[in-house]
Amino acid sequence: MTTTVTASSESGFSQRLNLVMRDRDSLLCVGLDPDPARMPQHLAGKSDAIFTFCRAIVDATADLVCAFKPQIAYFAAQRAEEQLEALIAHIHHAHPGVPVILDAKRGDIGPTAVQYAREAFDRYQADAVTLSPYMGRDSIAPWLEWPERGIFLLCRTSNPGGSDLQSLVAEGRPLFERVAQLASIPLDQGGWGAPGRIGLVVGATFPAEIERVRTIVGLDMPLLIPGIGAQGGDLEATIRAAGSKASIINSSRDILYASSGENFDVAARAAAIALRSSIRSAVGSARPPIDP
Amino acid sequence: MTTTVTASSESGFSQRLNLVMRDRDSLLCVGLDPDPARMPQHLAGKSDAIFTFCRAIVDATADLVCAFKPQIAYFAAQRAEEQLEALIAHIHHAHPGVPVILDAKRGDIGPTAVQYAREAFDRYQADAVTLSPYMGRDSIAPWLEWPERGIFLLCRTSNPGGSDLQSLVAEGRPLFERVAQLASIPLDQGGWGAPGRIGLVVGATFPAEIERVRTIVGLDMPLLIPGIGAQGGDLEATIRAAGSKASIINSSRDILYASSGENFDVAARAAAIALRSSIRSAVGSARPPIDP
Repeated sequence: MTTTVTASSESGFSQRLNLVMRDRDSLLCVGLDPDPARMPQHLAGKSDAIFTFCRAIVDATADLVCAFKPQIAYFAAQRAEEQLEALIAHIHHAHPGVPVILDAKRGDIGPTAVQYAREAFDRYQADAVTLSPYMGRDSIAPWLEWPERGIFLLCRTSNPGGSDLQSLVAEGRPLFERVAQLASIPLDQGGWGAPGRIGLVVGATFPAEIERVRTIVGLDMPLLIPGIGAQGGDLEATIRAAGSKASIINSSRDILYASSGENFDVAARAAAIALRSSIRSAVGSARPPIDP
Repeated sequence: MTTTVTASSESGFSQRLNLVMRDRDSLLCVGLDPDPARMPQHLAGKSDAIFTFCRAIVDATADLVCAFKPQIAYFAAQRAEEQLEALIAHIHHAHPGVPVILDAKRGDIGPTAVQYAREAFDRYQADAVTLSPYMGRDSIAPWLEWPERGIFLLCRTSNPGGSDLQSLVAEGRPLFERVAQLASIPLDQGGWGAPGRIGLVVGATFPAEIERVRTIVGLDMPLLIPGIGAQGGDLEATIRAAGSKASIINSSRDILYASSGENFDVAARAAAIALRSSIRSAVGSARPPIDP
Protein backbone atom coordinates (compact mmCIF):
# COMPACT_ATOMS: atom_id res chain seq x y z
CA MET A 1 0.00 0.00 0.00
CA THR A 2 1.14 3.53 -0.69
CA THR A 3 -1.05 5.09 1.99
CA THR A 4 0.56 8.09 3.64
CA VAL A 5 -0.42 8.63 7.22
CA THR A 6 0.09 12.03 8.77
CA ALA A 7 1.06 12.39 12.39
CA SER A 8 -1.51 15.06 13.15
CA SER A 9 -4.73 13.93 14.75
CA GLU A 10 -6.47 17.07 13.46
CA SER A 11 -6.21 16.46 9.72
CA GLY A 12 -8.94 15.41 7.35
CA PHE A 13 -12.16 13.92 8.57
CA SER A 14 -11.61 14.30 12.33
CA GLN A 15 -10.73 17.94 11.94
CA ARG A 16 -13.93 18.65 10.06
CA LEU A 17 -15.96 16.69 12.56
CA ASN A 18 -14.42 18.55 15.50
CA LEU A 19 -15.07 21.89 13.84
CA VAL A 20 -18.76 21.22 13.45
CA MET A 21 -19.01 19.73 16.95
CA ARG A 22 -17.52 22.90 18.45
CA ASP A 23 -19.38 25.23 16.11
CA ARG A 24 -22.78 23.85 17.04
CA ASP A 25 -21.88 22.68 20.54
CA SER A 26 -23.45 19.35 19.62
CA LEU A 27 -22.50 15.69 19.76
CA LEU A 28 -25.79 14.62 18.18
CA CYS A 29 -25.84 12.59 14.98
CA VAL A 30 -29.20 11.93 13.34
CA GLY A 31 -29.39 8.49 11.74
CA LEU A 32 -31.42 8.36 8.54
CA ASP A 33 -33.13 4.94 8.41
CA PRO A 34 -36.18 5.60 6.21
CA ASP A 35 -38.57 2.68 6.69
CA PRO A 36 -41.65 3.10 4.44
CA ALA A 37 -43.74 1.17 6.97
CA ARG A 38 -43.07 3.88 9.58
CA MET A 39 -42.99 6.99 7.39
CA PRO A 40 -45.92 9.46 7.48
CA GLN A 41 -49.00 8.30 5.64
CA HIS A 42 -49.23 11.35 3.38
CA LEU A 43 -45.95 10.40 1.70
CA ALA A 44 -47.04 6.84 0.85
CA GLY A 45 -46.89 5.93 -2.81
CA LYS A 46 -44.84 8.95 -3.89
CA SER A 47 -41.91 7.95 -6.07
CA ASP A 48 -39.46 10.13 -4.14
CA ALA A 49 -41.01 9.57 -0.71
CA ILE A 50 -37.73 8.44 0.87
CA PHE A 51 -35.84 11.49 -0.35
CA THR A 52 -38.67 13.85 0.61
CA PHE A 53 -38.93 12.34 4.09
CA CYS A 54 -35.19 12.38 4.76
CA ARG A 55 -34.69 15.87 3.32
CA ALA A 56 -37.38 17.24 5.63
CA ILE A 57 -35.71 15.58 8.65
CA VAL A 58 -32.31 16.92 7.55
CA ASP A 59 -33.54 20.47 7.04
CA ALA A 60 -35.38 20.42 10.38
CA THR A 61 -32.35 19.26 12.37
CA ALA A 62 -29.19 20.33 10.49
CA ASP A 63 -28.35 23.22 12.84
CA LEU A 64 -28.57 20.85 15.82
CA VAL A 65 -26.27 18.05 14.70
CA CYS A 66 -22.58 17.27 14.24
CA ALA A 67 -23.28 14.67 11.53
CA PHE A 68 -25.91 12.74 9.61
CA LYS A 69 -25.74 8.97 9.25
CA PRO A 70 -27.81 7.47 6.43
CA GLN A 71 -28.13 3.67 6.67
CA ILE A 72 -27.72 2.33 3.14
CA ALA A 73 -29.80 -0.84 3.62
CA TYR A 74 -33.00 1.20 3.90
CA PHE A 75 -32.31 2.74 0.51
CA ALA A 76 -31.05 -0.43 -1.19
CA ALA A 77 -34.07 -2.51 -0.12
CA GLN A 78 -36.32 0.07 -1.82
CA ARG A 79 -34.26 0.46 -5.03
CA ALA A 80 -33.65 4.04 -3.85
CA GLU A 81 -29.97 4.53 -4.63
CA GLU A 82 -30.70 7.68 -6.62
CA GLN A 83 -32.63 9.10 -3.69
CA LEU A 84 -29.61 8.43 -1.45
CA GLU A 85 -27.33 10.21 -3.93
CA ALA A 86 -29.73 13.15 -4.03
CA LEU A 87 -30.05 13.24 -0.24
CA ILE A 88 -26.30 13.37 0.38
CA ALA A 89 -25.88 15.98 -2.36
CA HIS A 90 -28.62 18.01 -0.66
CA ILE A 91 -26.85 17.81 2.72
CA HIS A 92 -23.55 18.99 1.20
CA HIS A 93 -25.27 21.80 -0.70
CA ALA A 94 -27.75 23.07 1.88
CA HIS A 95 -25.74 22.37 5.03
CA PRO A 96 -22.07 22.60 4.04
CA GLY A 97 -19.63 21.36 6.65
CA VAL A 98 -21.95 18.78 8.22
CA PRO A 99 -20.27 15.40 7.66
CA VAL A 100 -22.21 12.48 6.23
CA ILE A 101 -21.31 9.08 7.69
CA LEU A 102 -22.59 6.37 5.37
CA ASP A 103 -23.55 3.42 7.56
CA ALA A 104 -22.77 0.49 5.27
CA LYS A 105 -20.65 -1.87 7.41
CA ARG A 106 -18.71 -2.96 4.35
CA GLY A 107 -15.79 -5.34 4.54
CA ASP A 108 -13.81 -6.85 1.69
CA ILE A 109 -10.26 -6.89 0.38
CA GLY A 110 -8.02 -5.64 -2.41
CA PRO A 111 -9.75 -4.68 -5.65
CA THR A 112 -13.19 -5.33 -4.14
CA ALA A 113 -12.53 -2.98 -1.22
CA VAL A 114 -11.57 -0.34 -3.77
CA GLN A 115 -14.94 -0.80 -5.51
CA TYR A 116 -16.78 -0.42 -2.20
CA ALA A 117 -14.76 2.71 -1.41
CA ARG A 118 -15.67 4.13 -4.82
CA GLU A 119 -19.31 3.40 -4.06
CA ALA A 120 -19.21 5.23 -0.71
CA PHE A 121 -16.78 8.06 -1.44
CA ASP A 122 -17.01 8.76 -5.19
CA ARG A 123 -20.57 7.82 -6.02
CA TYR A 124 -22.33 8.83 -2.79
CA GLN A 125 -19.78 11.47 -1.71
CA ALA A 126 -19.92 10.30 1.88
CA ASP A 127 -17.41 11.89 4.25
CA ALA A 128 -17.00 8.68 6.21
CA VAL A 129 -18.24 5.09 6.21
CA THR A 130 -18.72 2.28 8.73
CA LEU A 131 -16.71 -0.93 8.15
CA SER A 132 -16.53 -4.41 9.64
CA PRO A 133 -13.03 -5.35 10.86
CA TYR A 134 -13.35 -9.15 10.49
CA MET A 135 -11.11 -9.39 7.38
CA GLY A 136 -8.31 -7.33 8.93
CA ARG A 137 -5.68 -4.95 7.69
CA ASP A 138 -6.01 -5.38 3.93
CA SER A 139 -9.76 -4.79 4.15
CA ILE A 140 -9.12 -1.43 5.84
CA ALA A 141 -6.04 0.00 4.13
CA PRO A 142 -7.68 0.60 0.71
CA TRP A 143 -10.19 3.01 2.29
CA LEU A 144 -7.36 5.17 3.59
CA GLU A 145 -6.30 5.99 0.02
CA TRP A 146 -9.00 8.71 0.14
CA PRO A 147 -7.09 11.15 2.38
CA GLU A 148 -9.96 13.50 3.23
CA ARG A 149 -12.42 10.80 4.22
CA GLY A 150 -12.93 8.82 7.40
CA ILE A 151 -13.76 5.26 8.41
CA PHE A 152 -15.46 3.90 11.53
CA LEU A 153 -14.66 0.28 12.38
CA LEU A 154 -17.19 -1.81 14.26
CA CYS A 155 -15.60 -2.40 17.65
CA ARG A 156 -18.13 -3.16 20.40
CA THR A 157 -21.63 -3.20 18.94
CA SER A 158 -24.77 -2.46 20.94
CA ASN A 159 -26.69 -5.68 20.18
CA PRO A 160 -26.83 -8.76 22.46
CA GLY A 161 -25.14 -10.99 19.83
CA GLY A 162 -22.26 -8.54 19.73
CA SER A 163 -20.79 -10.49 22.63
CA ASP A 164 -20.64 -13.76 20.66
CA LEU A 165 -17.26 -12.86 19.14
CA GLN A 166 -16.40 -9.37 20.40
CA SER A 167 -16.16 -10.40 24.05
CA LEU A 168 -14.04 -13.50 23.51
CA VAL A 169 -10.78 -13.11 25.38
CA ALA A 170 -7.68 -13.70 23.27
CA GLU A 171 -4.15 -12.94 24.40
CA GLY A 172 -5.50 -11.51 27.65
CA ARG A 173 -8.05 -9.07 26.27
CA PRO A 174 -11.45 -9.20 24.63
CA LEU A 175 -11.55 -9.06 20.86
CA PHE A 176 -13.12 -5.58 20.74
CA GLU A 177 -10.15 -4.19 22.70
CA ARG A 178 -7.83 -5.74 20.13
CA VAL A 179 -9.74 -3.90 17.40
CA ALA A 180 -9.40 -0.66 19.36
CA GLN A 181 -5.68 -1.26 19.81
CA LEU A 182 -5.08 -2.05 16.13
CA ALA A 183 -7.08 1.05 15.11
CA SER A 184 -4.89 3.22 17.33
CA ILE A 185 -1.62 2.03 15.74
CA PRO A 186 -0.79 3.57 12.32
CA LEU A 187 -0.60 1.36 9.24
CA ASP A 188 3.10 1.97 8.82
CA GLN A 189 3.72 0.75 12.37
CA GLY A 190 1.90 -2.54 11.87
CA GLY A 191 -1.59 -1.44 12.91
CA TRP A 192 -4.67 -0.51 10.95
CA GLY A 193 -4.85 3.17 11.76
CA ALA A 194 -4.49 6.59 10.26
CA PRO A 195 -4.74 9.34 12.85
CA GLY A 196 -7.54 11.75 12.09
CA ARG A 197 -9.16 9.38 9.66
CA ILE A 198 -10.19 6.37 11.70
CA GLY A 199 -12.84 6.02 14.38
CA LEU A 200 -14.73 3.22 16.10
CA VAL A 201 -18.34 2.18 16.60
CA VAL A 202 -19.10 1.38 20.25
CA GLY A 203 -22.61 0.75 21.55
CA ALA A 204 -24.13 2.84 24.32
CA THR A 205 -25.44 -0.34 25.92
CA PHE A 206 -21.98 -1.11 27.32
CA PRO A 207 -20.56 2.03 29.03
CA ALA A 208 -17.85 0.11 30.91
CA GLU A 209 -16.54 -1.20 27.62
CA ILE A 210 -16.70 2.24 26.02
CA GLU A 211 -14.46 3.41 28.86
CA ARG A 212 -11.96 0.63 28.11
CA VAL A 213 -11.97 1.61 24.43
CA ARG A 214 -11.49 5.30 25.23
CA THR A 215 -8.54 4.43 27.47
CA ILE A 216 -6.92 2.46 24.65
CA VAL A 217 -7.46 4.95 21.82
CA GLY A 218 -7.08 8.26 23.68
CA LEU A 219 -9.35 11.28 23.72
CA ASP A 220 -9.01 12.32 20.07
CA MET A 221 -10.30 9.30 18.16
CA PRO A 222 -13.96 9.72 17.12
CA LEU A 223 -16.32 7.19 18.67
CA LEU A 224 -19.66 6.70 16.91
CA ILE A 225 -22.11 5.62 19.58
CA PRO A 226 -25.49 4.13 18.67
CA GLY A 227 -27.86 2.53 21.15
CA ILE A 228 -29.17 5.52 23.10
CA GLY A 229 -32.96 5.50 23.38
CA ALA A 230 -34.59 2.65 21.45
CA GLN A 231 -31.85 0.21 22.44
CA GLY A 232 -31.80 1.32 26.08
CA GLY A 233 -28.35 2.87 26.41
CA ASP A 234 -27.82 5.25 29.33
CA LEU A 235 -26.78 8.72 28.15
CA GLU A 236 -25.02 9.96 31.27
CA ALA A 237 -23.04 6.76 31.72
CA THR A 238 -22.13 6.82 28.05
CA ILE A 239 -20.80 10.38 28.10
CA ARG A 240 -18.95 9.73 31.35
CA ALA A 241 -17.25 6.76 29.69
CA ALA A 242 -16.64 8.21 26.24
CA GLY A 243 -15.82 11.81 27.09
CA SER A 244 -17.12 14.81 25.21
CA LYS A 245 -14.25 15.65 22.91
CA ALA A 246 -14.83 13.22 20.06
CA SER A 247 -17.97 11.27 20.85
CA ILE A 248 -20.86 11.13 18.40
CA ILE A 249 -24.19 10.19 19.91
CA ASN A 250 -26.42 8.69 17.25
CA SER A 251 -30.19 8.61 17.37
CA SER A 252 -32.33 7.36 14.52
CA ARG A 253 -35.85 6.09 15.22
CA ASP A 254 -36.64 8.34 18.22
CA ILE A 255 -36.10 11.39 15.99
CA LEU A 256 -37.29 10.13 12.58
CA TYR A 257 -40.54 8.72 13.90
CA ALA A 258 -41.28 11.23 16.68
CA SER A 259 -44.57 11.80 14.84
CA SER A 260 -46.22 9.99 11.96
CA GLY A 261 -48.32 13.04 11.10
CA GLU A 262 -47.75 15.71 8.48
CA ASN A 263 -45.79 17.68 11.08
CA PHE A 264 -43.21 14.90 11.42
CA ASP A 265 -40.36 17.31 10.76
CA VAL A 266 -41.46 19.69 13.51
CA ALA A 267 -41.72 16.74 15.90
CA ALA A 268 -38.30 15.50 14.77
CA ARG A 269 -36.79 18.92 15.48
CA ALA A 270 -38.35 18.97 18.95
CA ALA A 271 -36.99 15.47 19.65
CA ALA A 272 -33.54 16.49 18.39
CA ILE A 273 -33.53 19.63 20.56
CA ALA A 274 -34.53 17.56 23.59
CA LEU A 275 -31.82 14.98 22.97
CA ARG A 276 -29.12 17.57 22.27
CA SER A 277 -30.10 19.24 25.51
CA SER A 278 -29.89 15.94 27.43
CA ILE A 279 -26.47 15.34 25.87
CA ARG A 280 -25.32 18.81 26.95
CA SER A 281 -26.51 18.13 30.50
CA ALA A 282 -24.70 14.81 30.51
CA VAL A 283 -21.55 16.52 29.23
CA GLY A 284 -21.92 19.15 31.95
CA SER A 285 -22.17 16.51 34.66
CA ALA A 286 -19.33 14.48 33.22
CA ARG A 287 -16.95 17.34 32.49
CA PRO A 288 -14.96 17.55 35.75
CA PRO A 289 -13.54 13.98 35.66
CA ILE A 290 -13.15 13.87 31.84
CA ASP A 291 -11.63 17.30 31.09
CA PRO A 292 -10.06 18.35 34.39
CA MET B 1 -37.04 -14.99 16.60
CA THR B 2 -39.65 -17.29 15.11
CA THR B 3 -37.18 -19.01 12.79
CA THR B 4 -38.00 -22.67 12.32
CA VAL B 5 -35.00 -24.87 11.75
CA THR B 6 -35.51 -28.24 10.15
CA ALA B 7 -33.41 -31.19 11.15
CA SER B 8 -32.68 -32.27 7.59
CA SER B 9 -29.40 -31.16 6.10
CA GLU B 10 -30.85 -31.64 2.63
CA SER B 11 -33.56 -28.98 2.73
CA GLY B 12 -33.66 -25.64 0.97
CA PHE B 13 -30.50 -24.07 -0.36
CA SER B 14 -28.06 -26.93 0.31
CA GLN B 15 -30.34 -29.42 -1.37
CA ARG B 16 -30.54 -27.31 -4.52
CA LEU B 17 -26.78 -26.77 -4.49
CA ASN B 18 -26.11 -30.49 -4.11
CA LEU B 19 -28.47 -31.31 -6.95
CA VAL B 20 -26.68 -29.06 -9.38
CA MET B 21 -23.26 -30.21 -8.15
CA ARG B 22 -24.19 -33.85 -8.83
CA ASP B 23 -26.07 -33.08 -12.04
CA ARG B 24 -23.11 -31.31 -13.63
CA ASP B 25 -20.38 -33.16 -11.74
CA SER B 26 -18.90 -29.76 -10.96
CA LEU B 27 -17.70 -27.90 -7.87
CA LEU B 28 -16.85 -24.81 -9.91
CA CYS B 29 -18.40 -21.44 -9.08
CA VAL B 30 -17.73 -18.54 -11.43
CA GLY B 31 -17.39 -15.23 -9.63
CA LEU B 32 -18.79 -12.24 -11.50
CA ASP B 33 -16.59 -9.22 -10.66
CA PRO B 34 -17.07 -6.95 -13.68
CA ASP B 35 -14.30 -4.35 -13.60
CA PRO B 36 -14.70 -1.89 -16.50
CA ALA B 37 -10.93 -1.36 -16.55
CA ARG B 38 -10.43 -5.03 -17.41
CA MET B 39 -13.44 -5.70 -19.61
CA PRO B 40 -13.00 -6.09 -23.38
CA GLN B 41 -12.42 -2.86 -25.26
CA HIS B 42 -15.32 -3.30 -27.66
CA LEU B 43 -17.80 -3.03 -24.77
CA ALA B 44 -16.38 0.27 -23.48
CA GLY B 45 -18.85 3.11 -23.26
CA LYS B 46 -21.97 0.99 -23.76
CA SER B 47 -24.63 1.76 -21.17
CA ASP B 48 -25.28 -1.91 -20.43
CA ALA B 49 -21.66 -3.08 -20.81
CA ILE B 50 -21.60 -4.74 -17.38
CA PHE B 51 -24.74 -6.75 -18.05
CA THR B 52 -23.63 -7.66 -21.55
CA PHE B 53 -20.20 -8.78 -20.34
CA CYS B 54 -21.54 -10.83 -17.43
CA ARG B 55 -24.38 -12.39 -19.45
CA ALA B 56 -21.89 -13.58 -22.06
CA ILE B 57 -19.71 -15.13 -19.33
CA VAL B 58 -22.75 -16.76 -17.74
CA ASP B 59 -24.07 -18.20 -21.00
CA ALA B 60 -20.62 -19.49 -21.93
CA THR B 61 -20.08 -21.30 -18.63
CA ALA B 62 -23.50 -22.15 -17.13
CA ASP B 63 -23.35 -25.86 -18.01
CA LEU B 64 -19.96 -26.13 -16.30
CA VAL B 65 -20.73 -24.59 -12.91
CA CYS B 66 -22.55 -25.38 -9.68
CA ALA B 67 -23.17 -21.68 -8.90
CA PHE B 68 -22.52 -18.10 -9.94
CA LYS B 69 -21.26 -15.52 -7.46
CA PRO B 70 -21.79 -11.87 -8.47
CA GLN B 71 -19.81 -9.45 -6.27
CA ILE B 72 -22.13 -6.53 -5.59
CA ALA B 73 -19.40 -3.89 -5.08
CA TYR B 74 -18.49 -4.00 -8.79
CA PHE B 75 -22.08 -3.15 -9.69
CA ALA B 76 -22.64 -0.58 -6.94
CA ALA B 77 -19.46 1.38 -7.77
CA GLN B 78 -20.76 1.76 -11.35
CA ARG B 79 -24.38 2.65 -10.46
CA ALA B 80 -25.28 -0.65 -12.12
CA GLU B 81 -27.89 -2.05 -9.70
CA GLU B 82 -30.39 -2.50 -12.52
CA GLN B 83 -27.82 -4.45 -14.51
CA LEU B 84 -27.31 -6.73 -11.49
CA GLU B 85 -31.06 -7.28 -11.21
CA ALA B 86 -31.24 -8.08 -14.91
CA LEU B 87 -28.23 -10.41 -14.71
CA ILE B 88 -29.65 -12.50 -11.87
CA ALA B 89 -33.06 -12.61 -13.56
CA HIS B 90 -31.28 -13.83 -16.70
CA ILE B 91 -29.49 -16.60 -14.79
CA HIS B 92 -32.75 -17.80 -13.23
CA HIS B 93 -34.57 -17.68 -16.57
CA ALA B 94 -31.93 -19.07 -18.92
CA HIS B 95 -30.21 -21.47 -16.52
CA PRO B 96 -32.83 -22.58 -14.01
CA GLY B 97 -31.51 -24.47 -11.01
CA VAL B 98 -28.10 -22.80 -10.94
CA PRO B 99 -27.89 -20.99 -7.58
CA VAL B 100 -26.78 -17.38 -7.41
CA ILE B 101 -24.67 -16.49 -4.38
CA LEU B 102 -24.66 -12.72 -3.93
CA ASP B 103 -21.25 -11.80 -2.51
CA ALA B 104 -22.14 -8.80 -0.36
CA LYS B 105 -20.53 -9.52 3.04
CA ARG B 106 -23.35 -7.70 4.79
CA GLY B 107 -23.59 -7.54 8.57
CA ASP B 108 -26.09 -5.61 10.65
CA ILE B 109 -28.79 -6.26 13.22
CA GLY B 110 -32.54 -6.27 13.76
CA PRO B 111 -34.60 -4.09 11.41
CA THR B 112 -31.48 -3.16 9.40
CA ALA B 113 -30.58 -6.81 8.78
CA VAL B 114 -34.13 -7.31 7.51
CA GLN B 115 -33.62 -4.47 5.01
CA TYR B 116 -30.36 -6.03 3.80
CA ALA B 117 -32.09 -9.41 3.46
CA ARG B 118 -34.85 -7.77 1.42
CA GLU B 119 -32.18 -6.24 -0.79
CA ALA B 120 -30.47 -9.59 -1.44
CA PHE B 121 -33.40 -11.99 -1.48
CA ASP B 122 -36.46 -9.96 -2.59
CA ARG B 123 -34.93 -7.32 -4.80
CA TYR B 124 -32.06 -9.25 -6.36
CA GLN B 125 -33.60 -12.72 -5.96
CA ALA B 126 -30.29 -14.19 -4.85
CA ASP B 127 -30.38 -17.78 -3.63
CA ALA B 128 -27.71 -17.13 -1.03
CA VAL B 129 -25.59 -14.30 0.31
CA THR B 130 -22.23 -13.87 2.06
CA LEU B 131 -22.28 -12.29 5.54
CA SER B 132 -19.76 -11.06 8.08
CA PRO B 133 -20.12 -12.73 11.51
CA TYR B 134 -18.64 -9.91 13.62
CA MET B 135 -21.98 -8.73 15.06
CA GLY B 136 -23.03 -12.23 16.10
CA ARG B 137 -26.28 -14.12 16.42
CA ASP B 138 -28.81 -11.32 15.95
CA SER B 139 -27.07 -10.22 12.75
CA ILE B 140 -27.53 -13.74 11.33
CA ALA B 141 -30.96 -14.90 12.54
CA PRO B 142 -33.01 -12.41 10.47
CA TRP B 143 -31.61 -13.88 7.25
CA LEU B 144 -32.92 -17.33 8.19
CA GLU B 145 -36.50 -16.06 8.02
CA TRP B 146 -36.27 -16.73 4.26
CA PRO B 147 -36.53 -20.54 4.45
CA GLU B 148 -35.49 -21.35 0.89
CA ARG B 149 -32.37 -19.18 0.85
CA GLY B 150 -28.86 -19.72 2.15
CA ILE B 151 -26.17 -17.71 3.91
CA PHE B 152 -22.38 -18.08 3.89
CA LEU B 153 -20.57 -16.62 6.89
CA LEU B 154 -17.02 -15.38 6.54
CA CYS B 155 -14.96 -17.82 8.57
CA ARG B 156 -11.30 -18.00 7.48
CA THR B 157 -10.69 -15.56 4.66
CA SER B 158 -7.97 -15.96 2.06
CA ASN B 159 -6.23 -12.59 2.55
CA PRO B 160 -3.11 -12.00 4.68
CA GLY B 161 -4.98 -9.62 7.03
CA GLY B 162 -7.51 -12.36 7.67
CA SER B 163 -5.18 -13.57 10.40
CA ASP B 164 -5.36 -10.27 12.33
CA LEU B 165 -8.56 -11.33 14.13
CA GLN B 166 -9.50 -14.74 12.75
CA SER B 167 -6.39 -16.50 14.07
CA LEU B 168 -6.52 -15.07 17.57
CA VAL B 169 -6.85 -17.91 20.05
CA ALA B 170 -9.71 -17.51 22.52
CA GLU B 171 -10.90 -20.23 24.88
CA GLY B 172 -8.41 -22.63 23.36
CA ARG B 173 -9.25 -22.23 19.68
CA PRO B 174 -8.75 -19.66 16.96
CA LEU B 175 -11.65 -17.31 16.30
CA PHE B 176 -12.44 -18.82 12.89
CA GLU B 177 -12.99 -22.21 14.52
CA ARG B 178 -15.41 -20.58 16.94
CA VAL B 179 -17.34 -19.21 13.95
CA ALA B 180 -17.42 -22.70 12.42
CA GLN B 181 -18.63 -24.17 15.70
CA LEU B 182 -21.39 -21.60 16.17
CA ALA B 183 -22.50 -22.09 12.55
CA SER B 184 -22.82 -25.83 13.13
CA ILE B 185 -25.12 -25.45 16.17
CA PRO B 186 -28.77 -24.65 15.35
CA LEU B 187 -30.28 -21.34 16.48
CA ASP B 188 -32.66 -23.05 18.88
CA GLN B 189 -29.72 -24.77 20.59
CA GLY B 190 -27.82 -21.56 21.22
CA GLY B 191 -25.80 -21.44 18.01
CA TRP B 192 -26.18 -19.47 14.81
CA GLY B 193 -27.02 -22.28 12.43
CA ALA B 194 -29.82 -23.70 10.36
CA PRO B 195 -28.91 -27.02 8.77
CA GLY B 196 -29.14 -26.90 5.01
CA ARG B 197 -29.19 -23.12 4.94
CA ILE B 198 -25.85 -22.03 6.35
CA GLY B 199 -22.37 -22.38 4.91
CA LEU B 200 -18.95 -20.85 5.48
CA VAL B 201 -16.36 -18.95 3.44
CA VAL B 202 -12.88 -20.43 3.84
CA GLY B 203 -9.92 -19.35 1.75
CA ALA B 204 -7.96 -21.79 -0.37
CA THR B 205 -4.73 -20.22 0.87
CA PHE B 206 -5.03 -22.09 4.17
CA PRO B 207 -5.75 -25.81 3.49
CA ALA B 208 -4.82 -26.91 7.01
CA GLU B 209 -7.40 -24.52 8.40
CA ILE B 210 -10.03 -25.67 5.90
CA GLU B 211 -9.43 -29.18 7.23
CA ARG B 212 -10.05 -27.97 10.81
CA VAL B 213 -13.26 -26.27 9.69
CA ARG B 214 -14.45 -29.38 7.83
CA THR B 215 -13.82 -31.48 10.93
CA ILE B 216 -15.93 -29.11 13.03
CA VAL B 217 -18.88 -28.70 10.66
CA GLY B 218 -19.04 -32.18 9.10
CA LEU B 219 -19.20 -33.18 5.45
CA ASP B 220 -22.59 -31.67 4.58
CA MET B 221 -22.12 -27.96 5.26
CA PRO B 222 -21.32 -26.02 2.07
CA LEU B 223 -17.92 -24.35 2.08
CA LEU B 224 -17.43 -21.51 -0.37
CA ILE B 225 -13.73 -21.46 -1.21
CA PRO B 226 -12.15 -18.47 -2.97
CA GLY B 227 -8.43 -18.01 -3.43
CA ILE B 228 -7.58 -20.62 -6.08
CA GLY B 229 -5.49 -19.14 -8.90
CA ALA B 230 -4.95 -15.40 -8.59
CA GLN B 231 -4.49 -15.62 -4.82
CA GLY B 232 -2.23 -18.66 -5.00
CA GLY B 233 -4.33 -21.36 -3.33
CA ASP B 234 -3.36 -24.98 -4.05
CA LEU B 235 -6.26 -26.88 -5.62
CA GLU B 236 -5.25 -30.43 -4.66
CA ALA B 237 -4.50 -29.50 -1.06
CA THR B 238 -7.78 -27.60 -0.89
CA ILE B 239 -9.91 -30.49 -2.13
CA ARG B 240 -8.04 -32.93 0.12
CA ALA B 241 -8.87 -30.69 3.09
CA ALA B 242 -12.42 -29.67 2.18
CA GLY B 243 -13.72 -32.90 0.64
CA SER B 244 -15.78 -33.10 -2.51
CA LYS B 245 -19.31 -33.41 -1.17
CA ALA B 246 -20.16 -29.77 -0.43
CA SER B 247 -17.18 -27.67 -1.48
CA ILE B 248 -17.59 -24.79 -3.91
CA ILE B 249 -14.41 -23.72 -5.65
CA ASN B 250 -14.72 -20.11 -6.75
CA SER B 251 -12.76 -18.54 -9.57
CA SER B 252 -13.36 -15.01 -10.78
CA ARG B 253 -10.57 -13.14 -12.55
CA ASP B 254 -8.88 -16.15 -14.20
CA ILE B 255 -12.13 -16.92 -16.02
CA LEU B 256 -13.61 -13.45 -16.57
CA TYR B 257 -10.43 -11.98 -17.97
CA ALA B 258 -9.01 -15.04 -19.77
CA SER B 259 -9.06 -12.84 -22.88
CA SER B 260 -9.67 -9.13 -23.37
CA GLY B 261 -10.60 -9.65 -27.01
CA GLU B 262 -14.01 -9.97 -28.61
CA ASN B 263 -13.82 -13.73 -28.03
CA PHE B 264 -13.63 -13.25 -24.26
CA ASP B 265 -16.57 -15.61 -23.71
CA VAL B 266 -14.93 -18.40 -25.68
CA ALA B 267 -11.73 -17.92 -23.69
CA ALA B 268 -13.74 -17.86 -20.46
CA ARG B 269 -15.38 -21.16 -21.39
CA ALA B 270 -12.00 -22.72 -22.12
CA ALA B 271 -10.64 -21.49 -18.79
CA ALA B 272 -13.71 -22.83 -16.97
CA ILE B 273 -13.40 -26.23 -18.68
CA ALA B 274 -9.72 -26.39 -17.73
CA LEU B 275 -10.40 -25.50 -14.11
CA ARG B 276 -13.35 -27.88 -13.80
CA SER B 277 -11.13 -30.58 -15.18
CA SER B 278 -8.37 -29.77 -12.66
CA ILE B 279 -10.97 -29.85 -9.88
CA ARG B 280 -12.17 -33.27 -11.06
CA SER B 281 -8.60 -34.57 -11.08
CA ALA B 282 -8.06 -33.22 -7.58
CA VAL B 283 -11.30 -34.85 -6.44
CA GLY B 284 -10.17 -38.13 -8.03
CA SER B 285 -6.86 -38.03 -6.17
CA ALA B 286 -8.51 -37.02 -2.93
CA ARG B 287 -11.44 -39.42 -3.03
CA PRO B 288 -9.97 -42.49 -1.27
CA PRO B 289 -9.20 -40.77 2.06
CA ILE B 290 -12.27 -38.50 1.95
CA ASP B 291 -15.01 -40.91 0.80
CA PRO B 292 -13.67 -44.35 1.71
